[in-house]
Amino acid sequence: MRLATIRIDGYTRAARIDGADAVVLDPPDVGTLLARADWPSVAATGEGPRIALSTVDYAPLVPRPAKIFCVGLNYRTHILEMGRPLPTAPTLFAKFPISLIGANDPLVLPAVSAEPDWEAELGVVVGTRLRRATTAQAVDAIGGYTIVNDVTMRDWQWRTTQWLQGKTFEATTPLGPWLVTPDEVGAAGAEGPDLAVRCLVDDAVMQDSRTSDLLFSPAETLAYISQVVTLEPGDVVATGTPGGVGSARDPKVFLRPGQVLRTAVEGLGECVNACVTEEP
Amino acid sequence: MRLATIRIDGYTRAARIDGADAVVLDPPDVGTLLARADWPSVAATGEGPRIALSTVDYAPLVPRPAKIFCVGLNYRTHILEMGRPLPTAPTLFAKFPISLIGANDPLVLPAVSAEPDWEAELGVVVGTRLRRATTAQAVDAIGGYTIVNDVTMRDWQWRTTQWLQGKTFEATTPLGPWLVTPDEVGAAGAEGPDLAVRCLVDDAVMQDSRTSDLLFSPAETLAYISQVVTLEPGDVVATGTPGGVGSARDPKVFLRPGQVLRTAVEGLGECVNACVTEEP
Repeated sequence: MRLATIRIDGYTRAARIDGADAVVLDPPDVGTLLARADWPSVAATGEGPRIALSTVDYAPLVPRPAKIFCVGLNYRTHILEMGRPLPTAPTLFAKFPISLIGANDPLVLPAVSAEPDWEAELGVVVGTRLRRATTAQAVDAIGGYTIVNDVTMRDWQWRTTQWLQGKTFEATTPLGPWLVTPDEVGAAGAEGPDLAVRCLVDDAVMQDSRTSDLLFSPAETLAYISQVVTLEPGDVVATGTPGGVGSARDPKVFLRPGQVLRTAVEGLGECVNACVTEEP
Repeated sequence: MRLATIRIDGYTRAARIDGADAVVLDPPDVGTLLARADWPSVAATGEGPRIALSTVDYAPLVPRPAKIFCVGLNYRTHILEMGRPLPTAPTLFAKFPISLIGANDPLVLPAVSAEPDWEAELGVVVGTRLRRATTAQAVDAIGGYTIVNDVTMRDWQWRTTQWLQGKTFEATTPLGPWLVTPDEVGAAGAEGPDLAVRCLVDDAVMQDSRTSDLLFSPAETLAYISQVVTLEPGDVVATGTPGGVGSARDPKVFLRPGQVLRTAVEGLGECVNACVTEEP
């Protein structure tokens, strides 16, 4: 099953993707839908107006998650090629919901940053409450997978030791287009799905890896976080990015107005965001 | 004017402190109240049942802020005594609302941490929307001041480079008891109020400083954050902690069950939280 949050007449609604259509459901967004204990059946059986997918306007998949956790340094090959030891705990940082944009929204590059960079990631959306869980329990709490691009202003990220300010710029993080339930991506076990993750800038492939290279799997990461706080339906975890970011290239390259940022995860669709100049 | 969020019969309500009473207002909490453009007059003139302050049960002052920003390394004297250079930008990290507790709630020490530590701080609550603001504009956007204890699990904070996981443990951050408007603490200018900040553990003074020692004042910090994101009414900024935390002592000391953590800021009241063992 595939779910989305779509914009209709200035409001948002949850929707189920059915072939070439989006079937509009009652809840105002996927986060609200997931907060219902019976969301799998409500989502699977709900009926409503149909909208052709080709004309759908995607909002951020979960517009206002109570928490957005992001993982750093989580692709094994990339950590080793950087000459770093493999970490024993996930590096976690936050984003605020105000950072999110829809899968096809313009990406307004902040005028105050000279170094906007890409980070294609597998996103996990929590489907049921999770507290002090084992990895096996966390597997069952995953509502589905999606795509995140953890777009980062590198100059702001590195101003201090804490990355938050470079990570949470307003309206710069694509999230979507769909929540895809685990059964659709062959992800029943603790190791999670094995999916290609790619990032393209104007059709040039910048990142190309697989989620099987993740050091901490989605379920392991959720279980770890659940030692700290309760994970709630609609919470989002961005699982980290593989090698190939612009700031690690020689010479460094960053996003520029006029470019198109494509973020694709196998089986989850893609986010296509046009980079534009900020209006004064 | 002093405002609070109080618990009544399992719900919360905003309240105005009037002498020895809390006057119950219509909005369910201070965050909801601040979202109204006319909140100063609604808060000042609203009438409702009166509850003796001595019996009031304080909820977190803003139960669900859209954003909680925290500042690290912000007391000038402490930075210099540590031999560090003065930073040129505020170090910012996040907390999630699930971390908050009320001013007199028990502080349940997580069983998974051996190093729970205190960080008494001046808190700032945003009163009006703020985006790309000057410091002067930020002064006018401050709804009021409050007390935060940024209780930190040091062992988790230092597991990785990013502090979030040690900072956002569930139900460990006292916030309150009141929002005190700037006029009550002589804080009209860009430099902010000059208030004593103290932290006591079982009546032993552990931290004792003044907010005039802040490197980045409340308004400067809000103006800086507003370059990154829009600050919204009810957002909370914890401005950093002075010297005297347990992990910087020799020998190190940490919070233990049975102790009482007192966090006081001059003119803002105090948070008094009994440390208790986590139930299995």
